[in-house]
Amino acid sequence: MQMNDLIVKKRDGGALTTEEIQFMIRGYTDGTIPDYQMSAMTMAIYFRGMDRRETLDLTMAMMHSGDTLDLSGVSGVKADKHSTGGVGDKTSLVLVPMMAARGVKMAKMSGRGLGHTGGTLDKLESFPGWSAAVPMEKFLENVETVGMVIAGQTADLVPADKKLYALRDVTGTVPSIPLIVSSIMSKKLAAGADVIVLDVKCGSGSFMKTEADARTLATEMVEIGKMAGRKTVAVITDMDEPLGNAVGNALEVKEAIAALSGAQPGELMELCYTLGACILTAAGLEPDEAAARAALEQSVADGSAKRKLAEFVAAQGGDRNAVYDVSLLPEAPVQVEVPAPEDGYVSHIAASDVGMVSMHLGGGRATKEDVIDLAVGVVLHKKVGDAVRAGESLATIHAAAPEAAARAARDLAACYTITPERPVHTPFIKAIIR
Amino acid sequence: MQMNDLIVKKRDGGALTTEEIQFMIRGYTDGTIPDYQMSAMTMAIYFRGMDRRETLDLTMAMMHSGDTLDLSGVSGVKADKHSTGGVGDKTSLVLVPMMAARGVKMAKMSGRGLGHTGGTLDKLESFPGWSAAVPMEKFLENVETVGMVIAGQTADLVPADKKLYALRDVTGTVPSIPLIVSSIMSKKLAAGADVIVLDVKCGSGSFMKTEADARTLATEMVEIGKMAGRKTVAVITDMDEPLGNAVGNALEVKEAIAALSGAQPGELMELCYTLGACILTAAGLEPDEAAARAALEQSVADGSAKRKLAEFVAAQGGDRNAVYDVSLLPEAPVQVEVPAPEDGYVSHIAASDVGMVSMHLGGGRATKEDVIDLAVGVVLHKKVGDAVRAGESLATIHAAAPEAAARAARDLAACYTITPERPVHTPFIKAIIR
Repeated sequence: MQMNDLIVKKRDGGALTTEEIQFMIRGYTDGTIPDYQMSAMTMAIYFRGMDRRETLDLTMAMMHSGDTLDLSGVSGVKADKHSTGGVGDKTSLVLVPMMAARGVKMAKMSGRGLGHTGGTLDKLESFPGWSAAVPMEKFLENVETVGMVIAGQTADLVPADKKLYALRDVTGTVPSIPLIVSSIMSKKLAAGADVIVLDVKCGSGSFMKTEADARTLATEMVEIGKMAGRKTVAVITDMDEPLGNAVGNALEVKEAIAALSGAQPGELMELCYTLGACILTAAGLEPDEAAARAALEQSVADGSAKRKLAEFVAAQGGDRNAVYDVSLLPEAPVQVEVPAPEDGYVSHIAASDVGMVSMHLGGGRATKEDVIDLAVGVVLHKKVGDAVRAGESLATIHAAAPEAAARAARDLAACYTITPERPVHTPFIKAIIR
Repeated sequence: MQMNDLIVKKRDGGALTTEEIQFMIRGYTDGTIPDYQMSAMTMAIYFRGMDRRETLDLTMAMMHSGDTLDLSGVSGVKADKHSTGGVGDKTSLVLVPMMAARGVKMAKMSGRGLGHTGGTLDKLESFPGWSAAVPMEKFLENVETVGMVIAGQTADLVPADKKLYALRDVTGTVPSIPLIVSSIMSKKLAAGADVIVLDVKCGSGSFMKTEADARTLATEMVEIGKMAGRKTVAVITDMDEPLGNAVGNALEVKEAIAALSGAQPGELMELCYTLGACILTAAGLEPDEAAARAALEQSVADGSAKRKLAEFVAAQGGDRNAVYDVSLLPEAPVQVEVPAPEDGYVSHIAASDVGMVSMHLGGGRATKEDVIDLAVGVVLHKKVGDAVRAGESLATIHAAAPEAAARAARDLAACYTITPERPVHTPFIKAIIR
């Protein structure tokens, strides 16, 4: 078998066989197929697509390119969540302890990545002493006893994706549905959960700009998950403005703690309840969505979800008191308000641009070597649909120094569109795909 | 400027600017743009194409990636010929001395390449002592005094093409019109001739399978040549059967010598007269095709073209006597006839398969390291349209050993299709594009 022949076959619109896809991923992972052939192939896939059987084969070949997590020794239902990412997305910090409080085991391996804020691991490092490094034995023990782990890459899951994603990123081949699906799903399948819930964002602040594209991606991922024998559900949500109020690492942890304290209604809780209900019903732990939702609300109301967060922080070496006293979390020395320039209604907040403000404040990574300032970021007080008066604070900037704060305040004001009329309300949860 | 952005632009159907194309070729040549980005780009070009302005910019950027030949010090008209390649193509060996005999200066740099037979340089090495290595000073001197040079890569012409062609060859991106055009024309422009004639083959034995594809390629090349300020003409010829009778290095040299002796009418001479007339009329040396053709026939009839060949062989260290006594050329020890299996007419000869017979006899290179046996090959006695009787010889195999000869005879018989009816005659010269 020759990689060049496979490229020609795909270029001419053919479907690759299971053996051809396995040959390709094996060869690419072990280095016998060079980057320059793989990038030509991914561009051919961009133009010609892959049918569902090919996408499944690609996903499975990638899943088997490295270690897979065996959670069969862990009792009960094991679930996992994936988000396609968005500005201000602290969902994991709320959802995972909420699920653990309901007895669902959540074992998450996360990366750090580049972006507007750090990844979930960076955010959690706001807890003094907390560590993402968990050896495998301890990892499995914590899943069983605490009910949740969020850790770094303890095992070498899907090395093919690490290589392939880095290549796609510099060869114009990121936005291809079969490549996105296989990248996400191979990692979810390798992580060993029985139930997978996918949070697929759409809108200006996310990767899928339209609801139609998000639906296509969600449907493919759900089908691939089911074909691979996992209970898989996707929730499509709006990302035209940042999720919740805080954008920034410690600021998002504080918002998550407030949410788990029942103090934070709104879209963040709406999303966490929806994702959580999908897991509970898919797992058969609750008969329907209403019952699942009531159970989750109960876990917040009785403080058990928040206790799970504290228990988890402590189990990975962190100070559990910070969950109850957020003054123990990092705090930026400079705080500046961003006043509304005029009366009206917030009709749009450019999510990506808010993310850039956080990044420029030092809250995110542009390159792998960048050091994140966990304390900085933005807290939005006004969201789309809110009425504002001129001079009223739209948001608070949390910065390391006055100059950076002043610049961020100017930039953040430009993220807001204020209009005389109240904007038409669009639903936040667009669809659930099972 | 970022290569990834250029890939995305082309992927989405945009036209690259002149500066972007120059950036890309400069970066790829100097190694700052890696193979894996270039192969994604060539696949995007395969799908999206390039407009004529882009193709010209690409051609010029490639031309300027290395040395260019300055023939301004050489007197008279300087012409060059390119063939898209075919089985049994010994056109250069006939056309170049014919043009030199008419006072047109022909300075050719050739590669060796892979294929059914060697390249022109390999064929010429059939002349004892002849060398392809000609230093630049001597190269220019011979063009002026002898009127012709055929040499190896004395200068580093178009290094971008060497790199890019090798990449395209293993990434499924060879058959793209703008990439083919820029590859061929950048080398022709760098070689410095005023007049360029292109021999574009079509049919089963060539790269362009249909006449329509060949016309598209020829038209693009002619337009790019003219936009670059060179007189450019293309001749589209049939390659459904091998050109002429001999396939093999020394065997083709012998056929060329016979042609220059006036002993070989048929399609080889038809092609050489047509290409030569295109050069003479494009250069303004003859008023029309009839006059040009008469002049060329005169150069064969009076022996002046053949004398030019001898003069050229001697000027590069070879034995000029071999031009007049072909027994001085390499000769294979074993010669075997291939008998016709039945009465009828030759309706088809699979050109590529005949090439493979020559290759298996040792006459070509499958890898750069292969050593060519100059003596071996095939001489076809029957061509398409010829009547044959069962047992009559279709061809003679020239081999190094009896076993190889027997195998080649079997394989060659399978290249022939013999039918009861005489096949419909199709014209050999399909079109001339100016």
